[in-house]
Amino acid sequence: MTRILVTNDDGIHSDGLQKLEEAMRELGDVYVVAPASEMSGASHSLTLARPLRIRQLDNRHWAIDGTPTDCVTLALNKILPPEELPDICVSGINHGGNLGDDATYSGTVAGALEATILGVPGIALSLVARDHFNFAAAASIAVTAAKKVLEEGLPEGTLLNINIPPGEIKGVKVTRQGIKNARPVITEHIDPRGKPYFWIGEEYFNTNSAEGTDYYAVEMGYVSVTPLRSDMTDHQALTAIETWNYLKEPELLQKG
Amino acid sequence: MTRILVTNDDGIHSDGLQKLEEAMRELGDVYVVAPASEMSGASHSLTLARPLRIRQLDNRHWAIDGTPTDCVTLALNKILPPEELPDICVSGINHGGNLGDDATYSGTVAGALEATILGVPGIALSLVARDHFNFAAAASIAVTAAKKVLEEGLPEGTLLNINIPPGEIKGVKVTRQGIKNARPVITEHIDPRGKPYFWIGEEYFNTNSAEGTDYYAVEMGYVSVTPLRSDMTDHQALTAIETWNYLKEPELLQKG
Repeated sequence: MTRILVTNDDGIHSDGLQKLEEAMRELGDVYVVAPASEMSGASHSLTLARPLRIRQLDNRHWAIDGTPTDCVTLALNKILPPEELPDICVSGINHGGNLGDDATYSGTVAGALEATILGVPGIALSLVARDHFNFAAAASIAVTAAKKVLEEGLPEGTLLNINIPPGEIKGVKVTRQGIKNARPVITEHIDPRGKPYFWIGEEYFNTNSAEGTDYYAVEMGYVSVTPLRSDMTDHQALTAIETWNYLKEPELLQKG
Repeated sequence: MTRILVTNDDGIHSDGLQKLEEAMRELGDVYVVAPASEMSGASHSLTLARPLRIRQLDNRHWAIDGTPTDCVTLALNKILPPEELPDICVSGINHGGNLGDDATYSGTVAGALEATILGVPGIALSLVARDHFNFAAAASIAVTAAKKVLEEGLPEGTLLNINIPPGEIKGVKVTRQGIKNARPVITEHIDPRGKPYFWIGEEYFNTNSAEGTDYYAVEMGYVSVTPLRSDMTDHQALTAIETWNYLKEPELLQKG
């Protein structure tokens, strides 16, 4: 029997997770290990400085007071029996897109990344919308993609970051990450005790949606499937940096 | 005058940050914007669900109750005047290594990554040790590397992840990320009220320290300089995944 781990960063009670879970039942046994509350922007953070609580809701659902990365590592190393590790991990469906550079801040992507690092193929799913979330379409795409990954596998260290456009879906495009030219807008307010506080928001402008990028695909009404690597090495830069003279400077060694 | 932004994930009062700040004064004006408390394992997380406090300690030091990513985005978009943006951002010196896959969990690396995404060249510095931190050697290497980056620049979207070995330094190697074959060990205890809690730890075994990797360089006593990309696209996998038939399956579109 195929085993499927479902997680997310919007929290265990979010609509997107519930729709994903329902859809995945078509493919096998589903286990849900997800944050107890919203963890958007958690990136690949792992909780090391404090203990975590695992709350088992029933024999298929666990809520954790931590990040998506905590959830996946606890699922694979504590909650699920070692002989019953999942065949795949799907993370989402996120309420909002994870396109371009935003993938690096995303807890949704991090859930799939953590599974990938621990040897379980991972897929992250996000719905590019602010309201009117068409989870039915997104869940159907999740099933098709998961089925394909279960059949074909993924290269070691590679995960899929899937973004679903709002509105009518024209098809699927395999894409590369685009570059976001966004400037965060920091709002400043005064609290009831008269002290200032700051809130990080974001103003999008001039998104670089060149052809072939995830931004472009979604703008054109296509599902964007971006393969991401856990290895961030810039292989192109390796050679250039190796020629830097300082690497041979004896000065460095004397000082050190 | 060269302007240098210093941040870290161990917190504004950590030794590694103070040593880095002192060393950087050799190169220009130094501004420190760092987490008020320890943020190890914060990865590239951005605090979106709650407000942040900025505590100005003097005209060169700000402490923030957030992550390294929060610190860098606030430094560049709120704290420093737009006409005085830094020429470089150095993050560290971390108390402990950030090698292989661990780079993706690291708040130290994330500080440099955030600067890179916002258009400021970034360097992350970590000292591979558990105690007896030789910050003098690490700070000297930080100065040499920062000087080189200020002279040569870095490719757009590329940052440097520098790990300094313990003990005598034999030289510098430009490396790729290694793969950690570590299994997290989750410890379980009972709290004073009789309820279980879990703490994520890590047991290293069989680290894959092939020649050319960051692990190998540090093991051999060399400083490891790994260029990392903010773009995680797996370009090799693009073609393979494009051939998947499901991309053309009309079934997908009908369902969606």
